[in-house]
This record gives sequence, structure tokens and C-alpha cells, in this order.
Amino acid sequence: MKAYLNRRYHFSASHRLHTDAYDDARNQAVFGKCNNPHGHGHNYTVQVTFSGQVDPMTGMVCNLADLDSFARQYLLDRFDHTNLNTLDLFRKLVPSTENLTIEVDRIFRAFPHAHLERVHVEETDNNSFDLYSDVTT
Amino acid sequence: MKAYLNRRYHFSASHRLHTDAYDDARNQAVFGKCNNPHGHGHNYTVQVTFSGQVDPMTGMVCNLADLDSFARQYLLDRFDHTNLNTLDLFRKLVPSTENLTIEVDRIFRAFPHAHLERVHVEETDNNSFDLYSDVTT
Amino acid sequence: MKAYLNRRYHFSASHRLHTDAYDDARNQAVFGKCNNPHGHGHNYTVQVTFSGQVDPMTGMVCNLADLDSFARQYLLDRFDHTNLNTLDLFRKLVPSTENLTIEVDRIFRAFPHAHLERVHVEETDNNSFDLYSDVTT
Amino acid sequence: MKAYLNRRYHFSASHRLHTDAYDDARNQAVFGKCNNPHGHGHNYTVQVTFSGQVDPMTGMVCNLADLDSFARQYLLDRFDHTNLNTLDLFRKLVPSTENLTIEVDRIFRAFPHAHLERVHVEETDNNSFDLYSDVTT
Amino acid sequence: MKAYLNRRYHFSASHRLHTDAYDDARNQAVFGKCNNPHGHGHNYTVQVTFSGQVDPMTGMVCNLADLDSFARQYLLDRFDHTNLNTLDLFRKLVPSTENLTIEVDRIFRAFPHAHLERVHVEETDNNSFDLYSDVTT
Amino acid sequence: MKAYLNRRYHFSASHRLHTDAYDDARNQAVFGKCNNPHGHGHNYTVQVTFSGQVDPMTGMVCNLADLDSFARQYLLDRFDHTNLNTLDLFRKLVPSTENLTIEVDRIFRAFPHAHLERVHVEETDNNSFDLYSDVTT
Repeated sequence: MKAYLNRRYHFSASHRLHTDAYDDARNQAVFGKCNNPHGHGHNYTVQVTFSGQVDPMTGMVCNLADLDSFARQYLLDRFDHTNLNTLDLFRKLVPSTENLTIEVDRIFRAFPHAHLERVHVEETDNNSFDLYSDVTT
Repeated sequence: MKAYLNRRYHFSASHRLHTDAYDDARNQAVFGKCNNPHGHGHNYTVQVTFSGQVDPMTGMVCNLADLDSFARQYLLDRFDHTNLNTLDLFRKLVPSTENLTIEVDRIFRAFPHAHLERVHVEETDNNSFDLYSDVTT
Repeated sequence: MKAYLNRRYHFSASHRLHTDAYDDARNQAVFGKCNNPHGHGHNYTVQVTFSGQVDPMTGMVCNLADLDSFARQYLLDRFDHTNLNTLDLFRKLVPSTENLTIEVDRIFRAFPHAHLERVHVEETDNNSFDLYSDVTT
Repeated sequence: MKAYLNRRYHFSASHRLHTDAYDDARNQAVFGKCNNPHGHGHNYTVQVTFSGQVDPMTGMVCNLADLDSFARQYLLDRFDHTNLNTLDLFRKLVPSTENLTIEVDRIFRAFPHAHLERVHVEETDNNSFDLYSDVTT
Repeated sequence: MKAYLNRRYHFSASHRLHTDAYDDARNQAVFGKCNNPHGHGHNYTVQVTFSGQVDPMTGMVCNLADLDSFARQYLLDRFDHTNLNTLDLFRKLVPSTENLTIEVDRIFRAFPHAHLERVHVEETDNNSFDLYSDVTT
Repeated sequence: MKAYLNRRYHFSASHRLHTDAYDDARNQAVFGKCNNPHGHGHNYTVQVTFSGQVDPMTGMVCNLADLDSFARQYLLDRFDHTNLNTLDLFRKLVPSTENLTIEVDRIFRAFPHAHLERVHVEETDNNSFDLYSDVTT
């Protein structure tokens, strides 16, 4: 039986939406208060969804201990308590939560023990983004 | 890369489930306490989901300022702090949350800057409804 | 050992803030959109706090079954799925959540098995009211 | 118009992850603290999603009173305030939340008034599982 | 300036409400479904509140790292993923959440870096208990 | 009748915990990951509690429209989407949430229409701070 496992991770980071390709007026017009010069921040929540057959012996899609260890190493140690704009990833890319979601998807595709279906990133209680891994258009 | 943007809006309204096509006994049997004569109310939460390519320049599916402005004009100004039964829409239609969801879907299909995927309307913490815009059967 | 027990109850109701003592313009000025003519509604949450000695035999402040039964009879059966303005209580009293809180306090003071300390009524996620039963000024 | 109805139910239960097919060391290695000898417990939340045409007369996908009555009889009366390991179902099956989700799916497929689309079971705020009823591989 | 710091911890455990001082019928009458023979469980949340002067140099009431380390050692390692009834503490004491709260209060009074004001233990979303450390009657 | 009104406001900001009075090693030892060089951020929630007599005419402790307008001007316009470290207030003061809470208390004491009782500031779901306005030691 194919089941889906959802797991949530939490980190705090700051960002500023800004692109050098625009002048200040256009940055302000496009990004509004998210373009404020010294940035701001969020408590981000990442929810990853994996699918797989439920192992008849263990009753598991995959071992959560493996997933937590993977998330610790590749997600939390890299993003928690950082300023996203200073990361290599966002040196030329606007650190919008859409772009962050694309990177989170890239990270968890490499998890070897189940099939990534979806990544979901919450920026605030009212604002979130999803990527479906099998939708590649 | 195609991503999905979710945005939540909140409003308070009242309604009474009742249809003139039924007599009082049948209204009571079908709608139970939701048929109580003077109505009751809810804090409704609407979550809309839009898909689109992430703009390589802005890192956005669409500009949230545009979506918020659209939601203010077409959703919140129309439904917040109202009695749903008194709206034209529900003059001949039971103001169930299913029917409200159908209207919310109709409203947000007109948003010009991204593709509506889903509307989700929460009536209480334990009760919600969805419509998928590409499912038309 | 004196402990405090908190218990939450939920109901849905509608109301309109309006007083006959004001003309329409003043009602509108004071109550804003809460004065809209046909009312609106909320999912109300009531949290009651009782104190008492923890019974050394049962380990309880009081039996929750007794409290739930009391709340069913005196709170939920009376307020759930109603229009507050049509209740006797609010015939001459604005059905604000402050006044509702005063009534909820009056109701739970009569619970015989523990000492009422506080009633807390949530109108929305961002809006709530408290009464402390031993503060009588 | 086809709509989706989501309804949440809550129960408390205990479980221990353990299989007689493994020796103690392997049980401990695979299940970690979830293999602790006397079990532990959770507040489980089940969310079921049903689809159907919105009835033009009642404005409903199906009557929530029917669904609640079904859930009371087949879900809550059976699982609430139990030790999952002592149920017949889990005599030879690890009572993981994946396996619980498979059983919840089996239960609600029998609800006669709408088409089951998904069951979702939350074990903690950060941990949940889904089954899509039309995905049978 | 005296400020209050609140910190939340989470663990999962099982319990059965039962006292050998009562016969089976009375246990069932007093504890209801919480007396079911093999127990059940909860996701418990503990919130501790400490007061202290805000250090003018660090801007802190106390260092959260110290508090987390204390909570890990004395709260979580002892209670997480356990059956409360099997702990020494509850060998002769009903493992009600009231009695658990009394123990949590006893534990955190020993934290040396700030003054314990309150412990708050949530058993479910609708059910919680408090102890105020300076209320000793 | 004296009642208490609670109102929640939300903003996003970034901060870095650091004091020039310490060298780098001590800053790192005291503040840990909160001392990371480029800062991080949070979705902050402020809840203010005011007390007052319930006006027998309006049923209100005070007019929420007045409080919201005050909060917009003095809280949200000043802190939302900012880097706290760049504000004058925190030029020589560590922008800990304790110190932010002290400032929020100072701000709302000036609200003229009710008596400030408490400010509560949430930094994350598990972490919050309170100040009681009448506790001045």
C-alpha cells in the first residue's frame, strides 16, 4: 500500500527582496516593504512529503530518524539562524520564499529512502509555497 | 519552475441553512441546528492556491500586493461582517460553505496574474471545503 | 496542593453591535462594520479556569465529566448556533463579547465542584476577553 | 459542481512500535524510543476528505450529521482511549501511524454517501500520514 | 525591569487513570474511559514561566540554552515516550495531568537561574492545568 | 464590571544578539547561534492586555478601532519589516525579545483609553515573554 509521509521542520532566518537588475525605485515598487534596506525575517516552516510502500515488517514508509538526520545536515544546519541574502545560493538570486522552496525541493530529492512528492514552505501563517516534484514544467 | 502560492484571508459572517423548497420539518431534519431560525455565524478562512512559473527576475509566482488588493475588493469587502443570506447570491441558493466555496472559486478565477488551482474554505477548525479549478465534472 | 484546571468549549453564533440609545449615524461611528444591519458571526471559544485542591485519591481538581455536563446544559445548549441579539439576555444589552464574557462568568460561578478563577472568551484569533472572578471592582 | 469536504476527528491512544519478527536489539535499532517497553501515546487527529456533487437543493456534498455518526461508530468508539497494540487489528501488525492510516482508509471507504478521496492522520504537530483512496499501487 | 519568560516543551506519553483504593466499578465511575484497562496517551505540552530582572548586558532573563539543557535532562529524558504508570513517581499516585503538573513544578523549582512562576501542562487542545509556584495553600 | 481585553498584532523583523561590551568569543558563548554575524529573523506576535470597566452603553472596554489605529502608528509602522539592530532604540541595547517587550510595554502605556495590564511578545511558537505593567520592581 502506497502511503504519504509528511514531516515538518522549523527554522528562523532573515532576508531582503532586492535585485541588482532593478534601480531603487523599481525595487521598491515591486517588492514594497520586503525591500526595506536592512531586511526583516521569518519563522519558516518546511513540510516535506514523501511517498512509498508501507514496509510490511516495520509498518513504515521510511525511518523518520533517517529523514531527521538528513534534514538536520542539509536543511537546518544550512539555513537556521542565517541571513538568506548572504548565502552563496542567493548571491545572484532573489531570496524569495518561492526560490527557497525550489532549493528545498532540490535538497530533499536527494533523500535516498523514499520518493519526494511535495515541499511546502510557510513564510507566515497566511503565506506559503509548494512545489510538486513530479511537475517539472 | 512551476510553483504554487497559497494565501489565506479571514472574514466573519453569519448564515442560516434553509431552503424554501422544504417545509419547516424537513428543513429541520436536513439542516439540524444550522436551520435555527435567526442564524449563527463563523470566522471563515479562505485559502487560495495559484500556480505559475517563478519569475527569474523577481523570484515570484505573482505579486502578493496585487492578490491582496484583488481579495480586498472582490472577497473581503463583499463578505466580511455580513449575513450571507441577505446577499443577492444566496437569495435562492442555500448559503452552505460548499456554495460559498463555489463562489469564491468563481471570484478568484478572474485574477489575471496566475492560474487558480484550488480554493479552500474553513468554516470551523474541524470543517472545510475545497474546489479544484481544473476539475469541472 | 492548589491547582488550576482550564477547559475550552466552542460554539458558533451571530451578533450585531447596536444600541437603540444611539441614532444610526452614531451606531455606525461607534461600532463600525460590527453595526452592519443584518449581523455577522464568529466561532467563539470559551476557556474556563477553576482552582481547587488536587484530591489525593483521584488526582483531580474536579471531575471533567461534571464540568462538561454543566457546560453542555448552561453554555452550549443556550448559545450554540444562535443569534445572540435574539436572546433575552441581549434584548436591552449590546451583545458585545465583553458582555457575553460577563454572562459566561455568571454561568460558571454556579458550578458547584471547584472555584471559578477566570473566564476567557475568544471572538477571533486576534481578539479575546477575560474576567477574573475575584476581581469585582 | 464537484467539491471536496474535509472533516477532522480527534482521539487519544497509546502504542508501542515492536515486531516479534525482530530480536530486542533490532527492534531498538529500528524503532528507537518508539520501542520503549511500556509504550507511549498521542493525541491523534484524523482528517477525511470526501468528494461529490454539491446537491443543488441542500448545497451539501453530504450531510455532516451522517458522517459524524459514522465516524463515532466506526472510528472513535473503536480507537479513542485505547492501547492500539491490544486491538485485534494490531495483533500481528506494527501499530505504526502508517498502518493506522491504512485502516482508517479502509473504514471510511464504506461510508455510503460520498466518495472517499483521502485520509490524513496526524500523530504530532510535525508528523502526519496520508492515503489517497484512488492510488492503489 | 522584571520580565517573564515562557518556554514550551513537548513529549508523548501514555497513562491510565486508576487507583487500587477503589474497586473496578468505582474506578470506572470516577475515571470513565480514562480507566480503560490498557491505557491511552497524549502529546503533552509543558510551558514553564520564569521571572527575573532583564540583564542590562545580555538583555536576557536567563539563558535559554541553560533552560533547554535542564529541561532535556530532568523533564524530557524522564517522561518522553514513556508509560507514566510505570514510573516510580506514579506507583502509588494516579498519573492524572494534575499530578503530573505538580511534579513538573517540583522539577523546575530547582532551575537555578530564574524564579519559577508557573507551570502549565496541556493534555489536549481543550484541556490544561496550571500551578503557580508562589501559591502554596 | 472590570474586564480585560486582549488584542494580537503581528510583524516580521530580523535581529542579531550581540553586545560590543563582549569580545567575539564571549558573544558566541552567550548568544550562540543568535549571534550569527548577519542576523536571522522571526514572525513576532504581540498581544496586549488592557483592563477597564465595560461601558454600559457600548458594551466595550474600549474601542478596538482606536487601539488598532494606535498599534498601526506606534508599533507596526515602526517595527514591521525592519532589522531591529538598525533602530535607534537598539543602537546600544541588545535587541533581545525581552528588551523588545520592555519597549512594547512603554509604547502601549501611552494608549489613553484603557489601562495596560500586560504585554506578551512571541518570538517563536515555543518562546515568549511577558511584562506586567503594574509590576515595577
